Amino acid sequence: MADNDISQTNSLPDQHLPVSSRHFELLTLGDELLLGLTANTHLTWIGQQLGRHGVELARNVTATDDAAAIVAELRESWARSDVVITTGGLGPTCDDRTREAVAEVLGQKLVFDPEIERAIAERFVNFGRKMTPNNLKQAYRFEHGDVLPNENGTAPGLWVEQDGKVLVMLPGPPNELQPLFTEQVLPRLARLGLVLEGEAYVQMRTAGVGESALETKLQPIFDRAGDALSVAYCAHPWQVDVRLSSPDGRLSMPELQAVAAECAALLDEDLVCYGHDSLAKVDADLLRAQDRTLAVAESCTGGRLANVFSDVSGVSKFFRGAIVCYCNDAKMQILGVPESLLEQHGAVSDECAVALATSVAETLEADYGLAITGYAGSCGDVKKNPAGTIFVGLHSPQGVWSKKLNYTAARPMVNERAITVALDWLRRELLRAASRASVPPRRANLAG
Amino acid sequence: MADNDISQTNSLPDQHLPVSSRHFELLTLGDELLLGLTANTHLTWIGQQLGRHGVELARNVTATDDAAAIVAELRESWARSDVVITTGGLGPTCDDRTREAVAEVLGQKLVFDPEIERAIAERFVNFGRKMTPNNLKQAYRFEHGDVLPNENGTAPGLWVEQDGKVLVMLPGPPNELQPLFTEQVLPRLARLGLVLEGEAYVQMRTAGVGESALETKLQPIFDRAGDALSVAYCAHPWQVDVRLSSPDGRLSMPELQAVAAECAALLDEDLVCYGHDSLAKVDADLLRAQDRTLAVAESCTGGRLANVFSDVSGVSKFFRGAIVCYCNDAKMQILGVPESLLEQHGAVSDECAVALATSVAETLEADYGLAITGYAGSCGDVKKNPAGTIFVGLHSPQGVWSKKLNYTAARPMVNERAITVALDWLRRELLRAASRASVPPRRANLAG
Repeated sequence: MADNDISQTNSLPDQHLPVSSRHFELLTLGDELLLGLTANTHLTWIGQQLGRHGVELARNVTATDDAAAIVAELRESWARSDVVITTGGLGPTCDDRTREAVAEVLGQKLVFDPEIERAIAERFVNFGRKMTPNNLKQAYRFEHGDVLPNENGTAPGLWVEQDGKVLVMLPGPPNELQPLFTEQVLPRLARLGLVLEGEAYVQMRTAGVGESALETKLQPIFDRAGDALSVAYCAHPWQVDVRLSSPDGRLSMPELQAVAAECAALLDEDLVCYGHDSLAKVDADLLRAQDRTLAVAESCTGGRLANVFSDVSGVSKFFRGAIVCYCNDAKMQILGVPESLLEQHGAVSDECAVALATSVAETLEADYGLAITGYAGSCGDVKKNPAGTIFVGLHSPQGVWSKKLNYTAARPMVNERAITVALDWLRRELLRAASRASVPPRRANLAG
Repeated sequence: MADNDISQTNSLPDQHLPVSSRHFELLTLGDELLLGLTANTHLTWIGQQLGRHGVELARNVTATDDAAAIVAELRESWARSDVVITTGGLGPTCDDRTREAVAEVLGQKLVFDPEIERAIAERFVNFGRKMTPNNLKQAYRFEHGDVLPNENGTAPGLWVEQDGKVLVMLPGPPNELQPLFTEQVLPRLARLGLVLEGEAYVQMRTAGVGESALETKLQPIFDRAGDALSVAYCAHPWQVDVRLSSPDGRLSMPELQAVAAECAALLDEDLVCYGHDSLAKVDADLLRAQDRTLAVAESCTGGRLANVFSDVSGVSKFFRGAIVCYCNDAKMQILGVPESLLEQHGAVSDECAVALATSVAETLEADYGLAITGYAGSCGDVKKNPAGTIFVGLHSPQGVWSKKLNYTAARPMVNERAITVALDWLRRELLRAASRASVPPRRANLAG
């Protein structure tokens, strides 16, 4: 922390208040957001991070790069918040005026920091590029404030404690903002008692049970836990997340975990995992633990089923590959699905889903094969298989099956649901395989 | 429009001001946005639509479902705006309080509308479901205001003209909001002179030229056009959009189009299209016009290259399919890439990219084959091919080639750039094929 000679500034926030009572606002800056050229991923990402640490963001304002607008918005946010976070406007170009606007509102001076200059210059040397003079704009910090070093870009984050409040300024690019936030901002906020150090809730990710059925099933457990427990449901296609928390802190984290364990026992296979892992990640972990491999064949989902695994690290260890085939010719040629089968039953049928699942597993020498074939869009065969009809096939070392889905919705939703159903089916089959082999014990996969 | 007995309400906005001087604010409501459970796609989508019709959204506020918060935000936005658009909070559940909050700010009464009730009841009948009583909440409209019928959901949009301003309330689900906005809201706003009826700018989508090189190339044309012309650049990986507009209206749309035509002549193949078509759509149009087909093989992009075509309608007409193969075994088995080639040159090599492009085209009986193989993530062979090294292969009726890309960036960016480069290369090859055959004339593809 820099020396501080402004009276009343740098006072620490009152640490005796619960974090859920804190007022956080997010100011996302940039004409590109208002013109829809860039999605406001910062709101989603920062909102999620704060939520996991016990704070619901109270408000998000997206404003233009105009200096007067920034001053007006920040003045308003600053007056009523405990913490204001800004994103964007820290770059080297002339339309980045955020620093100056913030300095005006805080009544602070901007000072040149040779250490930031050195870090910027070093970055340019490492990339073998010449530093243009406008980059030095990024070497200014607030006279009474800290610098949050940025390992992935030239503009560092800035941190100010003043008037019992905190102001955090973050660079716009997500690959710079996100590590800066988790590695520096969250720990600093936790030290000041403004967010929880650990997770604020226990999340159970479930699949295959509707929200109301889930509530009916779990409510007796929640009733026994008493009114200190707060339960929130968040529904996605074929997947519902249940969050247990105790906003006033009457239940400890171990007590929340005990309630969750009771739910888990009741949910059995319908529980995907604790926490935030995707179904693809859970499937990947199960496949790797059992030393099994997967291949997929898909038509209407057009590569999206294959692509869900691309975010999982070490994908080539368990994922043999995928075949995307829209047309029957391709199904026949590459996967050897018999022409007679396609003629008799059609490409959108139980028979074809089964043939695809087995063929792709055999062709790519995988233990498991997943297949999706259907009409997601508006075409479809109106009588037999209207749009929204999808068949999922699963080939495993135990056999091969298919199931039919009917779901009336917009095309991307139909596809998303089909992919989730397929991944969930594979997960259940892998759980059963593990319990047959007794290794690894199923609960081990839920530790995270 | 309902009868109107409130003095001063229902006055029309002054139609003599240019639309670019209009103040539009967007109020996106919902705790799920602030908790990061749902992305704020409304800002991006509505911002883009307004931008295309001459208005830059001045501000977007995301607030909780709390009634007091909604009243406070709306009061502030309403005071300084010509148009306020709200999204969300129109549903049947008890946390949807937007209607009441808006009525309070406008000093209006909510009245039950039997026509809305009939539409909701009809919807339930069509879906064979029972209407629960809470759905009738959605049958209320403002006493002095209009109803915007919603064909894709139960909650209609609401429209109020009052105090020379317009308030538009839209339901939250994107598949309901978006058609409502384009089919009803934009035409109404245009009639009131609040947005342009047509497009506000001419957009040229270019590929393969950096932003500064593009500027250097086009500036002489822009200089000749004079200071009535406004030029904006928007850079994406391997792709830059150039927007020509005349904010004060001194240049007419035909004059802007003439400037764009001059640029097009100079840009030649580097111009992808006018407007907003994706590279995949442009490739698809070229393939269909020439009655040609495509197949793709990909490793590090894991299905994303295949998936870019899934948004193009009639994809099965030109897209034969895709093979996603992370591991060498799969490359050999399914595509017959020789083991000796993989051993000698590795899977990330010119040789492999060429073999993959040709093999996938031959295996799937396509005219064109595109292949992507590389190290997008952190693995990579440090000496020869560090992370960020990607080879793209293109097989065409004229031959087969590969090119090497080096791009140091986060993994998704590396992949996005590789996909864009591949699609752009295919586009150029298809343009050359068309000009060799002289059908169809290349300019025809730029008409949109």
